[in-house]
Amino acid sequence: MNADWDVTTLLEGMVRDLRPRVDPEQTAMIGIFTGGVWIAQALHRALGLKTALGQLDISFYRDDFSQIGLHPQVRASDIPFAVDGRSIILVDDVLYTGRTIRAAMNEIFDYGRPANILLAVLVDRGGHEVPVAADIAALRLNAAAGGQIKLRGPDPLRLELLTSPRTAS
Amino acid sequence: MNADWDVTTLLEGMVRDLRPRVDPEQTAMIGIFTGGVWIAQALHRALGLKTALGQLDISFYRDDFSQIGLHPQVRASDIPFAVDGRSIILVDDVLYTGRTIRAAMNEIFDYGRPANILLAVLVDRGGHEVPVAADIAALRLNAAAGGQIKLRGPDPLRLELLTSPRTAS
Repeated sequence: MNADWDVTTLLEGMVRDLRPRVDPEQTAMIGIFTGGVWIAQALHRALGLKTALGQLDISFYRDDFSQIGLHPQVRASDIPFAVDGRSIILVDDVLYTGRTIRAAMNEIFDYGRPANILLAVLVDRGGHEVPVAADIAALRLNAAAGGQIKLRGPDPLRLELLTSPRTAS
Repeated sequence: MNADWDVTTLLEGMVRDLRPRVDPEQTAMIGIFTGGVWIAQALHRALGLKTALGQLDISFYRDDFSQIGLHPQVRASDIPFAVDGRSIILVDDVLYTGRTIRAAMNEIFDYGRPANILLAVLVDRGGHEVPVAADIAALRLNAAAGGQIKLRGPDPLRLELLTSPRTAS
């Protein structure tokens, strides 16, 4: 069983939730590679943010780095604004264990001390392993339901729910 | 105006919420100095956890360390169990900006890679500045209400709400 969601509609919901919490002149945005950057590009455009979009590759910051080894395509992080005192919206496609977000926060704090970081995700998958939470989520799922969520893109963006193959083996 | 809460009743609620999520033989607990350690001692006893209680002093890990300087009484952190693969309950008295919890997570990960960290606090004060959330909170307040929350102790434990003195000056 596969189920697809209309990503355009989900993004519209995120924009609606974010707009009252954003100052287009001041608020900055950072997307996490790869899916988070796709989502961030759409949100950044829709919200008309003036500060250039940042992007993070947290491969080196993950706490399981030594277990998974180096990803063959390590991309450079790029934060094209001063982080100190800044209000930042951190964007990812799927929030699951929270470990990626913990790593992303650490990388942001290596650049400076932001006034605040708001987390916006397309899907909150549940099943957090560290006490991290999304401020904005277009879709909140129950981890107990199982299955995998995958954002395909970048054009078009498509969100797939794949039920766990474990039952088939 | 001051308001006091019955901390004993609040702790009973936390124990009730924690019990189904705890394995007394395996689950470990860490309190954050000073108030978090007081709360953790009470929870640890009530839940009958077998692993010795840990404690963290996050003074050196805070992101505003350079702004507030060194606290005159820096205490040693003490984690008397192997962190790798462990389920850990992290305990603090008041969750406010979330920066202390981010620092505490980083200190825990310096010891090893836990299976998961669950955050239990006496009071979630609201007003988070980083995307950190409590899994268990005896009391959830609206930050917009203003005022300060302070846990006095250790014997007896007493929770005080002090409304902001700014209006009086």
